[in-house]
Amino acid sequence: MILNEFETAYQSYFPFWEELTAADRAFLCQQSSLVRFEKAQMVHDNSGCTGLFIVKSGRLRLYMLSEEGKEITLYRLLPGEICMLSASCVLESITFDVFVEAEVPSDCYMIAASAFGEISARVPAAKIYALETAVGRFSDVMWIMQQVVFMSMDQRLALFLLEDAGINDQMLITMTHEQIARHLGTAREVVSRMLKRFAGDGVVEVSRKGIRILDMKKLRNLAG
Amino acid sequence: MILNEFETAYQSYFPFWEELTAADRAFLCQQSSLVRFEKAQMVHDNSGCTGLFIVKSGRLRLYMLSEEGKEITLYRLLPGEICMLSASCVLESITFDVFVEAEVPSDCYMIAASAFGEISARVPAAKIYALETAVGRFSDVMWIMQQVVFMSMDQRLALFLLEDAGINDQMLITMTHEQIARHLGTAREVVSRMLKRFAGDGVVEVSRKGIRILDMKKLRNLAG
Repeated sequence: MILNEFETAYQSYFPFWEELTAADRAFLCQQSSLVRFEKAQMVHDNSGCTGLFIVKSGRLRLYMLSEEGKEITLYRLLPGEICMLSASCVLESITFDVFVEAEVPSDCYMIAASAFGEISARVPAAKIYALETAVGRFSDVMWIMQQVVFMSMDQRLALFLLEDAGINDQMLITMTHEQIARHLGTAREVVSRMLKRFAGDGVVEVSRKGIRILDMKKLRNLAG
Repeated sequence: MILNEFETAYQSYFPFWEELTAADRAFLCQQSSLVRFEKAQMVHDNSGCTGLFIVKSGRLRLYMLSEEGKEITLYRLLPGEICMLSASCVLESITFDVFVEAEVPSDCYMIAASAFGEISARVPAAKIYALETAVGRFSDVMWIMQQVVFMSMDQRLALFLLEDAGINDQMLITMTHEQIARHLGTAREVVSRMLKRFAGDGVVEVSRKGIRILDMKKLRNLAG
């Protein structure tokens, strides 16, 4: 029964699915599991090659972590998106470390890294898919890099609030200043100070409930 | 005669070369040229899909450029290394902009992007090679990202001086403070101030000739 669910899901997610033999398709489904992550639970902590995840529902966050515990979010994965870097052992050319956690309760399809590695070593279309997925995320990381190097923290905070409002489709951002700071790779005090300024300018309203966007146009202007 | 030179070079650079038909190999060689770039000459300015370059001699620098003209070096390409992002039209999953210039006088083999694109669309091994090369550079960019987000400018300057000394195999770094600032994505004044401090601590000596590393051990300590 659950095998059928994997088959149906993979058929729609993997462009190379029809190129696999029936045996290989069955093998990947057998090596799959449906995994539930609670809010803030680690999905991949770099201690090994966890596997390849497809977000069925919820949201994953991929981030870098410094030795001192500082973080920066590289990108977020929404339903239907695939987490390839947690199976980076499949791609020898990836030598960096990333961490993945569930931002909200999330259900994911997981394929064991060894199984996907075996198939992608044999089937060029699967390997090309894995590499293209990774290269696509390279573009996301370059966008963050551009923000970090070339933009002011004001601009980056404005962009982040816009992104979060877009993802959740609401004007209220229910995150603590500490959480926002971790996304942006900065200190909580910096975020609090900037939000105070944004509030003073009538762009947002900061309350116990969270940060409410009052003036979308002004916020977009701040984002540049 | 020159066709033979391409054939010999590509044979050693491209792991997929033997998998191509004789006709495809001849086609790629015909679509190749040997290009000479002078110091500081642009190799790829993002106005189109230039092509794929292999550094025969010299050194290329790949960097990001902001609208205000601020720069940061992502990585440098040494002899034998391949510049894939200048042919990013071949890889649809790459959507960001990079600039490439010659750091020193450089000779490069160039394959027209359209020709390489045609081959890689037909030959999976060529496509896999192109993607793996791009993903490999993803790792370099993540290393720069880590430096930018998590390290002090002191550390980054120390790392840069070490890298440059290593590339040129000499203790004298013959770059202006302005050039170093562009590599690091910062202002000249910042570099000058830090070099003054490094000099005060006996780590380097700053003169008209350039920056001479006096104490390698101290510099490595600064780099962390």
